Amino acid sequence: MAKDEIRTGYKIIGTRPNRPDGLDKVTGRARYGADFHAPGMLFGAVVRSPHAHARIVKIDASKALALKGVKAVVTRADLPSGTTGAEFDLQENTLAGERALYDGHAVAAVAATSQLLANDAARLIEVDYEILPHVTDVDAAMAEGAPVIREGAADHSVPEGMHPNVVRHIEFGHGDLEAGFAAADIVRQQHYRTEATHQGYIEPHACVGQLGEDGKGEMWVCTQGHWYIRQMCAQVLGLEAAQLRVTPSEIGGGFGGKTTIFMEPLALALSKKAGGRPVKLVMSRAEVLRATGPTASASMDVKIGMKKDGTITAASVEFRMQGGPFVGMSPVGEALSCAFACYTIPALRHVGYEVLANRPKCAAYRAPGSPMAAFAVESLIDEMTRELGLDPIDVRLKNGARDGDRASYGPTYRTIGLRQTLEAAKAHPNYSVPLGPNQGRGVASGFWFNHGGETSVSLAISEDGTVQVSVGTPDIGGSRASIAMMTAETLGIPYEDVRVNVVETGALGVNEPTHGSRATFASGKAAYKAAQQAIGEMCKRAAAKWGIDPEAVTWSEGAAHPAGDNAGKFEPMTIKEIAAQMGKTGGPISGHHESTPGGVGASFGTHVVDVEVDPETGRVTILRYLVVQDAGRAIHPAYVEGQYQGGAVQGIGWALNEEYIYGADGRLQNPVFLDYRVPVASDLPMIDTVIVEVPNPGHPYGVRGVGETGITPPLPAIANAIHAACGARVRHLPITPAKLLKAMQERANG
Amino acid sequence: MAKDEIRTGYKIIGTRPNRPDGLDKVTGRARYGADFHAPGMLFGAVVRSPHAHARIVKIDASKALALKGVKAVVTRADLPSGTTGAEFDLQENTLAGERALYDGHAVAAVAATSQLLANDAARLIEVDYEILPHVTDVDAAMAEGAPVIREGAADHSVPEGMHPNVVRHIEFGHGDLEAGFAAADIVRQQHYRTEATHQGYIEPHACVGQLGEDGKGEMWVCTQGHWYIRQMCAQVLGLEAAQLRVTPSEIGGGFGGKTTIFMEPLALALSKKAGGRPVKLVMSRAEVLRATGPTASASMDVKIGMKKDGTITAASVEFRMQGGPFVGMSPVGEALSCAFACYTIPALRHVGYEVLANRPKCAAYRAPGSPMAAFAVESLIDEMTRELGLDPIDVRLKNGARDGDRASYGPTYRTIGLRQTLEAAKAHPNYSVPLGPNQGRGVASGFWFNHGGETSVSLAISEDGTVQVSVGTPDIGGSRASIAMMTAETLGIPYEDVRVNVVETGALGVNEPTHGSRATFASGKAAYKAAQQAIGEMCKRAAAKWGIDPEAVTWSEGAAHPAGDNAGKFEPMTIKEIAAQMGKTGGPISGHHESTPGGVGASFGTHVVDVEVDPETGRVTILRYLVVQDAGRAIHPAYVEGQYQGGAVQGIGWALNEEYIYGADGRLQNPVFLDYRVPVASDLPMIDTVIVEVPNPGHPYGVRGVGETGITPPLPAIANAIHAACGARVRHLPITPAKLLKAMQERANG
Repeated sequence: MAKDEIRTGYKIIGTRPNRPDGLDKVTGRARYGADFHAPGMLFGAVVRSPHAHARIVKIDASKALALKGVKAVVTRADLPSGTTGAEFDLQENTLAGERALYDGHAVAAVAATSQLLANDAARLIEVDYEILPHVTDVDAAMAEGAPVIREGAADHSVPEGMHPNVVRHIEFGHGDLEAGFAAADIVRQQHYRTEATHQGYIEPHACVGQLGEDGKGEMWVCTQGHWYIRQMCAQVLGLEAAQLRVTPSEIGGGFGGKTTIFMEPLALALSKKAGGRPVKLVMSRAEVLRATGPTASASMDVKIGMKKDGTITAASVEFRMQGGPFVGMSPVGEALSCAFACYTIPALRHVGYEVLANRPKCAAYRAPGSPMAAFAVESLIDEMTRELGLDPIDVRLKNGARDGDRASYGPTYRTIGLRQTLEAAKAHPNYSVPLGPNQGRGVASGFWFNHGGETSVSLAISEDGTVQVSVGTPDIGGSRASIAMMTAETLGIPYEDVRVNVVETGALGVNEPTHGSRATFASGKAAYKAAQQAIGEMCKRAAAKWGIDPEAVTWSEGAAHPAGDNAGKFEPMTIKEIAAQMGKTGGPISGHHESTPGGVGASFGTHVVDVEVDPETGRVTILRYLVVQDAGRAIHPAYVEGQYQGGAVQGIGWALNEEYIYGADGRLQNPVFLDYRVPVASDLPMIDTVIVEVPNPGHPYGVRGVGETGITPPLPAIANAIHAACGARVRHLPITPAKLLKAMQERANG
Repeated sequence: MAKDEIRTGYKIIGTRPNRPDGLDKVTGRARYGADFHAPGMLFGAVVRSPHAHARIVKIDASKALALKGVKAVVTRADLPSGTTGAEFDLQENTLAGERALYDGHAVAAVAATSQLLANDAARLIEVDYEILPHVTDVDAAMAEGAPVIREGAADHSVPEGMHPNVVRHIEFGHGDLEAGFAAADIVRQQHYRTEATHQGYIEPHACVGQLGEDGKGEMWVCTQGHWYIRQMCAQVLGLEAAQLRVTPSEIGGGFGGKTTIFMEPLALALSKKAGGRPVKLVMSRAEVLRATGPTASASMDVKIGMKKDGTITAASVEFRMQGGPFVGMSPVGEALSCAFACYTIPALRHVGYEVLANRPKCAAYRAPGSPMAAFAVESLIDEMTRELGLDPIDVRLKNGARDGDRASYGPTYRTIGLRQTLEAAKAHPNYSVPLGPNQGRGVASGFWFNHGGETSVSLAISEDGTVQVSVGTPDIGGSRASIAMMTAETLGIPYEDVRVNVVETGALGVNEPTHGSRATFASGKAAYKAAQQAIGEMCKRAAAKWGIDPEAVTWSEGAAHPAGDNAGKFEPMTIKEIAAQMGKTGGPISGHHESTPGGVGASFGTHVVDVEVDPETGRVTILRYLVVQDAGRAIHPAYVEGQYQGGAVQGIGWALNEEYIYGADGRLQNPVFLDYRVPVASDLPMIDTVIVEVPNPGHPYGVRGVGETGITPPLPAIANAIHAACGARVRHLPITPAKLLKAMQERANG
C-alpha cells in the first residue's frame, strides 16, 4: 500500500455490529475494578487530610495496629526516599510528606482483613496537623500575599516579580498584533472563568495490588492505561517496571481521569508490608471527588478584532490555570494551542500562566484545556457576531481553517474537516427550526489535536483460523469493535471471527493509555499492520505448498490466491486451511507492530444547541442539540455517535451544573453526586449527530480520533444560546439558575 | 550466528539464582487452579458412573433442579452433536453418551450457589444404568469372548481375526532377525507386565469457566497447556478458538496428565446454561484417580540375542497396551520407539498392539511408554548380563548408541550423550560402594526423544530497560528461571532485570503445552531469537542517534557499541538509555518469534541404585540412588537436578508401590493416596545426581530437554538391584513386598 493511500470498498467498516463486550456488560458478566478477588486478600482504607494546607506533625498508628486483623499501616516513611522532579510529585501526591497540600490528600493507609475493620482502623490513626494558610482560587493564588504552596517550583519562563505560585509562563503567536487590531472595525475584550469539574466516571477507582519482598508485584486495576500505572507505581515504589504486571479491568468511564495513579501504589505498599497478601482499595465517591484529578479552574481574558464582514484580523488571549499543588498539571499549554485552532487569523498572541493551588492535582479530562479555551474564544466571537448582526456559522466559515493552512499552534494542517462540519450544521434541519419565546440558538466550533502515542499490538491466528488481536488500550468507547472490524476487513474474514483482547502489561510491549482519542486510531493502525504481516506469512505458507514464489501470491476474501502466471493453477487456500496446517508448515502464525504512529488527524466539530430559559427561575432547558463532527472515517458509526453524544452531555454538565465548590476553610463542599450534579437522562433531549467523513490520510482506513472534540463546543454553544434566549451573557461557568437569574436581573436593571 | 553454533562463555547460564516464582510459592502467594474467584461464581459437581460399563437408560435431574440455588444441570444432550473422530472421543469422555465406559466416567454435572449445594444436587440426579459386561485387563480385553468396547474402532493395521478391542497394530524394525539370533551365544525371552500408574500431581484439576450465549468465554485453569485446553473445549462445545480466552494458574504438578481436558468443558457448558455466571469445578483426589488420565497398563514380551562378550546381535519386542476406551490413547508407539533407542543393534523387530478397556482414557505421563519399555528391555539385558557374568555398564557401553548411528526408531542421531552417562556412572563413587548382605546394585539406562512443538514467544523492553518475556509454556519445573537466564545472557543484562510471564491464550500466538521436555528448549530458543530481534532494533536506534549504519553497531554487555571505523567514536548506549528514549525514536521495542523448532536433542540417562531387601517381609529399602543424565547444557543446574530427582522418585514409586487396582466389578479399589501409595520423603534417600553436558547443536545454548528421561531407568534399575540383592526376579510391577516375598519363596522352593 502506498503511503497515504486510504483503503476503500469496505464490507465491514461502516456497519454497526454488536460490540464484542456488549453481552458481558448488559448481563453483569464484565468484571470491573472492584470485582477482582484473590485468596488471602486484605482490604485497605486511606486516611486523608481534612485540611487544605497543613503541616503533618505526627502520625500515630498504634491504636489501629493494636486491632486484631489489622495487618499493615503505611505512611510516607514507607516509600523510598530520594525521588526528584515528577517522580517526587507522584510520590508526594500518593502520600503527603511534610505537608498535606489539599483537602483529601492521602496521609496514611491501612490494610485489614475486612473493609469494615480497615475503615475502623483508619479512624484510629491519629494525625496531628498544624494548619497552614491555604489558597484555592487561581487568581487569588497569584495575588500578592497568597500563601506559598511550594517555594522554588517556578521555572525560568516565569517573569520576575510574579508570585512563587506562578510556576510556568507560556507565550507564543505570530503576525503583527497591533496592525491586526488596527485593521478591525470592532475590537472587544472580555474576561471569562470556568470552575474545576470532574470527569464524573460512574466507576470509582479500584484496584487490588500484590507486592513481595522480592520486588515482584501484580495489580488489577480500573485504568485507561495500565503501562502508565506500571511505570508510575514503579517510580513511586522504586520497582523495576518489568517486575510489576498490571492487568486492567473493564472500565466504567475514565475520560482522562484514569491515566495516572492515585491510591494504586498504596495497595502495593500495604501488600508488601503485609507479607505479600493482596490488598484491595476501592474509593468512595467522596474520595474520587476530593482526591483524584479534576480539571483546572481557569481565569481567561480574550481580545478579538473583527471586520464588519466577520473577518477576524487579530486576537490575543491570556489564560491563567491552576493544576493543584504540583507543577505541570494544568492544561494551560493545550488550552492556548486550542484557543484559535479552528481559525486562520493573521495576528495572534497566546499568553498563559500555570498556578499552584491547594486543590487536588489535576488530571486529564477529555480534550484537556480545549473546553475552557473554546468557552472564552467562542463566546467572544459570538458576542461580536451578534453585535455585527452576522450569522455565527458564516463568520466561522469566513475565518475557518482550510487544508494547508498554518495552524494557530504552529504546524500545517493536512486534510481537515472544520468547514465541512460548519456546512453540514448549516444544512441540518435543527438550524432552521423556528424558536419560541425565551428560546435561543447557540453555535460553537471546537477542536482537538488527537494523539498517536506509543503503541504495541500483536495478532495471532488460532488453529481454526479465527483471529485474536492483543491490544494495550482499554476499551472505553467501543474500540474492541472498531479494531475487530478493521482487522476483519484487512484479513477478509467475518467480524465474528476476530476477538480483540485488552491484555495485561506482562504480555505485550509498551502502550500509552486510551487517551488523546488514540485507541481506534493507533491500535487500529497497528492492528492493520500486524494483520498485513500475518497475511504476508500466510501467503508464504501457500506459496510453499504450491511450490511458487511468495511474491506470486495475493490475499483477498480471507484466502491466498495464486496470481500472475500461476493464477487459476491452484485452489485458493483459506485462512482456516492455512491455520489448520501451520504447526507443520513452520509454526504458529502471528503478526506484530510497535510504533509511535504519525499521521494523527486533527478533529473539528460544530455544535448547534437550542435552549429555553425560564425567566422566573433562570433554569435552562436543552430543547435540541446537534453535534456535527469529522470522524475521518467512522469505523463503527454507532460508537462514533456515542462518543459525540457523550462529549456533548459532559459539556452540557460543565456549562450548566458542574463545579467544584470550595469553602472558606479550603474544603470541598460538594463531594457527592447529589451536590456535584452531572446531567442525567431526564435533563437531556436525544443528542442529534451528523458524522462528517473527511478521511485522515495518515491512517489506512482514514480514521481520526473522535473521543474528545465533542466536549469542547458545548460550553460556549450553550452560553451563546442562553444569551440568544434571554439577552444575558454569563461569562463564568457553570451557568446555574442563580447565576443566570442574577445576570438577567442585572440586565433588566441595567 | 552460524547455524549450529553453540554460544559459550556465559555469565549467567550455569549459575543458580533464586527462581522468580520462588517467593510466591513459599509464601502462599502463588495462585493455583482453585484459587480463582469471580463475582457471582457458581460451584459445580460431577455425577460419575459407578459402573465400568453400563448403558445409560435415563437421567432425571428434576429433584436436583428443584433445589433452591441450583442453577444448571448439563448432560450429553447439552453438548453439540455431530462431532466425529478424536473430537467425538473428547466429547464422549467429557460426558458419557449412550454408555458409561469406565468407573468414574462423567454422566452429568450441576452448578449451584455453593459447593455443598452442588454436591447435594449431584446426589439427587438419578441415573438409570443397564450394567454391561466389562473388561479392564489388557490381555483379557484381547481374548476371545471379551466384551466389545467399541465396534468398528480398529484401523486397517490390525490383522484379521483379532478381537475388535485391538484397535491398532504397529510393526517396524530392520536387519535380519533370524541371522541375528543365530549369531548370538544366548537367546533369551521373557514376559513383563506393568500396571497403570497415575502422575500423582499434588494439585487436583481445578478450573473456573465462563461462557456466554454469544460464544465468548473465559477459563482459568490448572493446566500444562492452555492452548490445548482452548482448542479442545472449542471442539467439544462448538466454539471458535479465538473467542475463548484461557488463563493458566500456577500448577502443582502435571507430568503430562494436564495436557488434555477432563471437566473443563463442563464448567463452560454449565456457565452458559446458568446465564453466563462463572462456574468453578475442583476435583477430589478420588475423581483425579478414577477419571483423569493415568498411564496404560502393559503386557510385554522381549527376546534378545547376546554374544558372550555382551554384544547384542538381535532383539524383538511385542508390546500390548490398553489406553482406556478410546483409540490412540495408549503410548504403545512411543514404547516401541524407545525400547532399543539406547542401543545400536543390527537386527530389530518391534510389534505393538493398542487395546481398548473399561478404564479411564490414558493421558501422557512423563516419557509416555518409555518406562514400560525400559522395564522390559533393561530387565532382560540385566538378566543376560548376569548370566554371562558381565558388568552391566560395560555391556551397555558395548552396545550403546553413538553420534551418527541410526536410531532404533529410524532417524540418525546427531550429538548424543548416552556413553558419557555410562562412563560417568561407572566413575561415580556410588558404583563402587561395598554392599552388605541382602543388598544389591542395579543399573539401567533410559531414553526420551524430547519434543519441539509449536512455540510463540514475545519479548518487550520496558521504559526503564527491564525486560519481560511472554511465554505460553506453564512453568512446571523452573522454566521461568531458565528462560530468564537465557534472555539475560543474550541481552547482556542482569538476571533480575528479566521477568518471564506465562501469559493467557488471548495474548500470544499458539503454544503447545509444557510437555515433551520442551519448555526450556523451545520457549528458550524462541526467547533467544526474540531477544536477538530486539537487539537488532536497539542497534538501529543507536545507529540512528549516532548517524551511522546499523550494521556498524554491535551489541554486548547490555549496550550498543559503535564498531568498525566508528569504534570509540561514540559512548555506548545502554539498554536503559535506549529504552528511556524509545517512544520518541520510533516506538516501543519488542522482539517476537514463532516456530515449530527443529534441533531437538535426544536425552539419555543412566541410573545406579542400591537396595536392601528385607528377607522376612519383602520390603525394599532404597539405600542410595544415582541419576546421571545428559542435559545438553544445564541452564540452571539446581532445577535440572530437581528434574532428575523428581523423575527418579516417580520411577521408584512405579517400581515399588504404585498401581491401579481394579476389582472384579471393574471399579477402582484404591482411589485415594492412602491406598494408591506414592513415595514420600521418608521412603527415599537423597537422590544423587550427575549432570553430563553434551551440548545439543540444535539450540543456541546447547539445551536438551531434561524432564522426562529420568523416570525411565528406575523401573528396571530397581528390579535389577532387587534381583542382585536377593536373587529373585520380579517381572511384574510394582514389586510390592507381597509379590517379592512370593518370588523369594518360589526361588527358595526351587
